[in-house]
Amino acid sequence: MPLTDEQLAEIDALRATPRQTLRAVSDGMENHLYKANAVLDHGFVRVIDYMGDDAAICQAARVSYGKGTKSVQNDEGLIRYLMRHWHSTPFEMCEVKLHVKLPVFVARQWIRHRTANVNEYSARYSILDREFYIPAPDQLAAQSTLNAQGRGELLTEAESARVLEILKTDAAQCYDHYQEMISEDGKQGLARELARMNLPANIYTQWYWKVDLHNLFHFLRLRADAHAQYEIRVYADCIAGLVADWVPFAYRAFEDYRMGGVTLSAQAVDCVRRMLKGETVTAENSGMSAREWREFEGVVG
Amino acid sequence: MPLTDEQLAEIDALRATPRQTLRAVSDGMENHLYKANAVLDHGFVRVIDYMGDDAAICQAARVSYGKGTKSVQNDEGLIRYLMRHWHSTPFEMCEVKLHVKLPVFVARQWIRHRTANVNEYSARYSILDREFYIPAPDQLAAQSTLNAQGRGELLTEAESARVLEILKTDAAQCYDHYQEMISEDGKQGLARELARMNLPANIYTQWYWKVDLHNLFHFLRLRADAHAQYEIRVYADCIAGLVADWVPFAYRAFEDYRMGGVTLSAQAVDCVRRMLKGETVTAENSGMSAREWREFEGVVG
Amino acid sequence: MPLTDEQLAEIDALRATPRQTLRAVSDGMENHLYKANAVLDHGFVRVIDYMGDDAAICQAARVSYGKGTKSVQNDEGLIRYLMRHWHSTPFEMCEVKLHVKLPVFVARQWIRHRTANVNEYSARYSILDREFYIPAPDQLAAQSTLNAQGRGELLTEAESARVLEILKTDAAQCYDHYQEMISEDGKQGLARELARMNLPANIYTQWYWKVDLHNLFHFLRLRADAHAQYEIRVYADCIAGLVADWVPFAYRAFEDYRMGGVTLSAQAVDCVRRMLKGETVTAENSGMSAREWREFEGVVG
Amino acid sequence: MPLTDEQLAEIDALRATPRQTLRAVSDGMENHLYKANAVLDHGFVRVIDYMGDDAAICQAARVSYGKGTKSVQNDEGLIRYLMRHWHSTPFEMCEVKLHVKLPVFVARQWIRHRTANVNEYSARYSILDREFYIPAPDQLAAQSTLNAQGRGELLTEAESARVLEILKTDAAQCYDHYQEMISEDGKQGLARELARMNLPANIYTQWYWKVDLHNLFHFLRLRADAHAQYEIRVYADCIAGLVADWVPFAYRAFEDYRMGGVTLSAQAVDCVRRMLKGETVTAENSGMSAREWREFEGVVG
Repeated sequence: MPLTDEQLAEIDALRATPRQTLRAVSDGMENHLYKANAVLDHGFVRVIDYMGDDAAICQAARVSYGKGTKSVQNDEGLIRYLMRHWHSTPFEMCEVKLHVKLPVFVARQWIRHRTANVNEYSARYSILDREFYIPAPDQLAAQSTLNAQGRGELLTEAESARVLEILKTDAAQCYDHYQEMISEDGKQGLARELARMNLPANIYTQWYWKVDLHNLFHFLRLRADAHAQYEIRVYADCIAGLVADWVPFAYRAFEDYRMGGVTLSAQAVDCVRRMLKGETVTAENSGMSAREWREFEGVVG
Repeated sequence: MPLTDEQLAEIDALRATPRQTLRAVSDGMENHLYKANAVLDHGFVRVIDYMGDDAAICQAARVSYGKGTKSVQNDEGLIRYLMRHWHSTPFEMCEVKLHVKLPVFVARQWIRHRTANVNEYSARYSILDREFYIPAPDQLAAQSTLNAQGRGELLTEAESARVLEILKTDAAQCYDHYQEMISEDGKQGLARELARMNLPANIYTQWYWKVDLHNLFHFLRLRADAHAQYEIRVYADCIAGLVADWVPFAYRAFEDYRMGGVTLSAQAVDCVRRMLKGETVTAENSGMSAREWREFEGVVG
Repeated sequence: MPLTDEQLAEIDALRATPRQTLRAVSDGMENHLYKANAVLDHGFVRVIDYMGDDAAICQAARVSYGKGTKSVQNDEGLIRYLMRHWHSTPFEMCEVKLHVKLPVFVARQWIRHRTANVNEYSARYSILDREFYIPAPDQLAAQSTLNAQGRGELLTEAESARVLEILKTDAAQCYDHYQEMISEDGKQGLARELARMNLPANIYTQWYWKVDLHNLFHFLRLRADAHAQYEIRVYADCIAGLVADWVPFAYRAFEDYRMGGVTLSAQAVDCVRRMLKGETVTAENSGMSAREWREFEGVVG
Repeated sequence: MPLTDEQLAEIDALRATPRQTLRAVSDGMENHLYKANAVLDHGFVRVIDYMGDDAAICQAARVSYGKGTKSVQNDEGLIRYLMRHWHSTPFEMCEVKLHVKLPVFVARQWIRHRTANVNEYSARYSILDREFYIPAPDQLAAQSTLNAQGRGELLTEAESARVLEILKTDAAQCYDHYQEMISEDGKQGLARELARMNLPANIYTQWYWKVDLHNLFHFLRLRADAHAQYEIRVYADCIAGLVADWVPFAYRAFEDYRMGGVTLSAQAVDCVRRMLKGETVTAENSGMSAREWREFEGVVG
């Protein structure tokens, strides 16, 4: 269980004191505020704050004095138009701030999304908790033979058990030594900024992460994708659910035009046209590489 | 008067409907929401939305589960420490969205601050209003003889009158022709994206501008500075007043360590030390250029 | 003709003095260095500097010690794979610096691409030249009836002549007055930072613009697109030609997967699949809006 | 020794083939190209490419057609003026690309500088080398009692020996297990993207890092500072030496106005003025907190 009683009490306290505001309010998001959504074995995603809603996207697109809403139907149409035609700036007018607890190796992928604001728990200043990501057995897979940077078939039970044993033992030993090195009990105690170097990449860290909706969609498109590593994809999936409640029109447009959409190359467009005219198009006469053709077959079914 | 009755009614409507929220609320900022703060002859700054308050800065710096506040005194101390030691990321955790109406030549300086989100009124899509910035006579100054990119002494009354006459006449004529070119009254009417090229740089435009507090402070430091052009400085001054009400601790720290502070070069530090030891330091033995020495004298009084 | 003899001599001088370097060199780009490529009536694009080539993209993707090249064929395959799968960071490893002269209203669109470095000619410090963009008659079109922010049919000859007369007269008058206001001939002379406000948006400005290849491709995709305003599109087209000579593999991949490619929505993918199975899909049973269906028909031919 | 013979041969090959270019060339930087500058026990910094030199900064600031140089003396004066008055955009016109090998915990600090381009060695795709940072004994220090996030006095010999033993043993064991988990020798072999989670933060990674000079100066100011962690400071110091050879004027200005300069708060400026008038200023009547006063004493000596 990721949170202590004290932490849960702090969250309850925050949810117990509604206040008045004149700002745009998203009821869907108010429901989520501060609550911890569990991800992986010790991680979570918490919404700390948000700015704007679907109407705010339209208000900014129209540079209007009031709400900017003409009608709910118009709003959805405008949002879909903006998404379809890559008018990204109105989506930047919404912002969300999350508190995320995640393994360090996931954090290292995540941080590559540069257009965001981050405050991470400092291991120079503070002592990290004894919490490590240990995969569930059904996530222990072999190196993929098709995709050089993914995973393939599941490990056998025996091999899986052996891997889990290693991960648990090494994590425990490294953390014991971490504690021992920083301990000032009868000795000087190594500086925290040095001792942390002994901790493996499955230890959990946490941060506040703030991002605008356009850049969040970009993050989701890459990280909720089937090619993303499972351990970051579950965070993206969790956040996608929160966004769907926050800005339902924008999220639906994102699903239709980005997540569920596909990009065809010039060659692929040409092949589709030829196929629709009745021509038999094959890998050989498609003008695509073998790998592209395989991807193309996945698209056209 | 910059706003129409309809626009004022829209603003009143927005202020008439408080709602409940669980988010951090800044009372100082709620007071300002949606209201138009007049700047120059036709411009304004309106707060449309905001995220966070002083406590949110501390909450992020501490990566905490609850409010992050230990005590009000601690919070101010932490904020001042963060500002003094250039820990900028916690200040990025606050965000503000403004609606600004401003002359085009001011917008052209403003937009150079890249870390912000902008939606500008589109002159391809819409017709610009007949509103031009005409300086007050006490702002009509000659080219500075000291600062190659600033203004110096005030124009004489006669020269000032002549300048104003030119600015008004040309603006009126260019706008008349703009209207004439786009008019579809008995003719095709030139496309708006073309006709706008006839409009001078003192015409007003407007945009939604969203920025985090750290980058806003950077904007204010450069644009509320005495060397900034008057016409952008008045916007920065207006915004500074809003920020002081929004995040009073952070704003005071900004005043003390940035706006009211100075940066001394290695040479200047050396001169201060020598002077404090009783040595007579002059332009000649200071190791500075003439211009630097003049600036240094301004600092040490 | 955009350049003076003195400027042309400066450019010749720069091209007359090759030097030795150990860096990656792109012969295609060396050919272009410093030369002015004419755009519109007084504008140009000049390559001032560049970093990297096709091989440098692969070198960074492989984080290699040497050139990173395994074979030319491998390099092109890798670049196409990176482009197809949105691995954008290796393309950021190439950089180009351009000197561009362009009308102010074009500059105002261009500057919205934030991930770039810019130094613009300062009208606070310097006096702008008397050079205005006056469209060729075949560019004078009416407001589009289909696209609210574009242009439609050409103006008649009479209407076109009248528009040109207006643009020329107003530009000339505004510039005369600009000169008169700043003139110190027997008077104080208005400060430049004020006088410039009288200049219309078709006056030319210039800047140094530096951008990485990934962000440049993004710029080209949006600005070389058929929906972009003609006056910025011609700049994008010019730059696209330079990039094709600089990094031919990357540019071809960009053409195939971005410029010549299309993004299909989830609904559109579904329609393609149904059509390929022999179903008759119409606007009505497509699940798309009328406008989307029209765009879709444009794709599938 | 960080490099294999093959890697050294690749570097030699790159340095053996000078080519002609019309671009700006910095002789100081040509000397450094591709060579590995050793940092820590297994790390290095290598210059892979660069764009621009001191003259290029002036050329962009002047938006000139030719070199932009009026005289060497003028150039240095202009560069110092730009640095002193925070005109940062001309410094953005220079760019450098580095290949860096560094421990993961250093990489995690480094990556927080967002305005840069990065390609990191992928542990999803490739197998990491068995190389870990093991501090030299004179870098093993206790937690600081003054600075909550720094280190204080050196560890005793005994404690230091014990720490080194732990770091070496755990690194070796974790790496052995990493190899064992991914081994396909008679078993499936765990996917690399999973196995890497067992590796501690002192393992070395490497990346290509590209940044403009303005943002590099910002990095150096924070990371070559006495408060930065030693293990990143040595990288910053190494890079600073390279920059000094690349753009000597800019680097000297950076040293005088940034690294060697200090920022005084409004209160500190007031105190300096009072002291210069002969007043005895103490912590009590300074208007500063105890900590600020201590920092102030460090400045005025």
